Amino acid sequence: MLKLHGFAVSNYFNMVKLALLEKGVPFETVVVHGGQSPEFLAISPRGKVPVLQTEQGYINETSAILEYLEERGEGRPLLPAEPYARAHVRALMKEIELYIELPARSCYLEVFFSGKVDELTKSKAKADLLAGVATLKRHGKFAPYVAGAQFSLADLYFLYSLDLAGIVAKKLFALDLLAELPQARALFALLEQNPHVQQIAADKQAAMTDFLAAIKAKG
Amino acid sequence: MLKLHGFAVSNYFNMVKLALLEKGVPFETVVVHGGQSPEFLAISPRGKVPVLQTEQGYINETSAILEYLEERGEGRPLLPAEPYARAHVRALMKEIELYIELPARSCYLEVFFSGKVDELTKSKAKADLLAGVATLKRHGKFAPYVAGAQFSLADLYFLYSLDLAGIVAKKLFALDLLAELPQARALFALLEQNPHVQQIAADKQAAMTDFLAAIKAKG
Repeated sequence: MLKLHGFAVSNYFNMVKLALLEKGVPFETVVVHGGQSPEFLAISPRGKVPVLQTEQGYINETSAILEYLEERGEGRPLLPAEPYARAHVRALMKEIELYIELPARSCYLEVFFSGKVDELTKSKAKADLLAGVATLKRHGKFAPYVAGAQFSLADLYFLYSLDLAGIVAKKLFALDLLAELPQARALFALLEQNPHVQQIAADKQAAMTDFLAAIKAKG
Repeated sequence: MLKLHGFAVSNYFNMVKLALLEKGVPFETVVVHGGQSPEFLAISPRGKVPVLQTEQGYINETSAILEYLEERGEGRPLLPAEPYARAHVRALMKEIELYIELPARSCYLEVFFSGKVDELTKSKAKADLLAGVATLKRHGKFAPYVAGAQFSLADLYFLYSLDLAGIVAKKLFALDLLAELPQARALFALLEQNPHVQQIAADKQAAMTDFLAAIKAKG
């Protein structure tokens, strides 16, 4: 059986977990917080989660894992069948990751972990996030899903990136990131009715205490 | 016919260009430097190059374009056939992009455009680049290509990311980025014998004057 290594607070772990749940593919989870130990680097070369353990070996990097799950062909597809439509989904995934998740991530230390982020990084993150949301507004369909009528891989990135980016923008910049994108708010409301999304949220909540303790132990 | 929009100095443009040349798929190029004009944002939602113009419309984001070209199925495949092997290539592509190209990019302003990058960004880039190369050393096969015996999409990322990252490391940190990775040097030497790689290098050289003038005009 597939094993998903990671932890329930990680947004990339949750993208893959939701993909597996939506597909209906059976899997087990292995709790690991990532890191630079030789043992973990042997299965994840940059020390990051998630990692998918397959019959043939380990796969790291969320986007590589998600494509692999599509190619296994088990359960419900999360990419359309037609190449141009698939390209649209993949461009949206990448735009959300590069132009929204990564800028938001540059501020997670201050927003979620009581650390301090320098002003230059924050001002760059603010500009990048605004440009990223404008990109999503231009390219997303929100009909009602990010890429159109079907739930797709782009919705995984949307759900588990825009939520954190919204918290960053509100806490650091007193900014409502979705002010110009009400259709995104409607999509959040729709996705939050999904029982798998609700399960992942509950699992995240339950894992939060352990995660914060692990962070603290790392110093 | 496919049209590739971008310019010959852009490393991401050159990744797609090399893919098209290696596949032997006919294409035209349309010179554009990217930017935030409404006209260009209509075809590239974040204003970036490259953009591929197809019979059905435009595709942006290099990784989405490269996957699309694989799925069109014309010419030589640049991904292996088997899903787990494909995942290995895709993980390498992503690792090179996130952990080598992006940190190097944070310093391009100072290294290539006579600008100034703050010390914090530079020191973060240095640490990230070293960790990125260590990642590639752990995960790359270099036998002789990045992912094994066959030239693949991972080699496109390698060729047009490690070269710039090496210049950044040398100029800013007096560091030989490939000191611990001699197999990468051997792969560079091999790839530089490829006539398409030579053509792209010549096209880049020829376009450099126009590109620097365009940068200067932007202020």
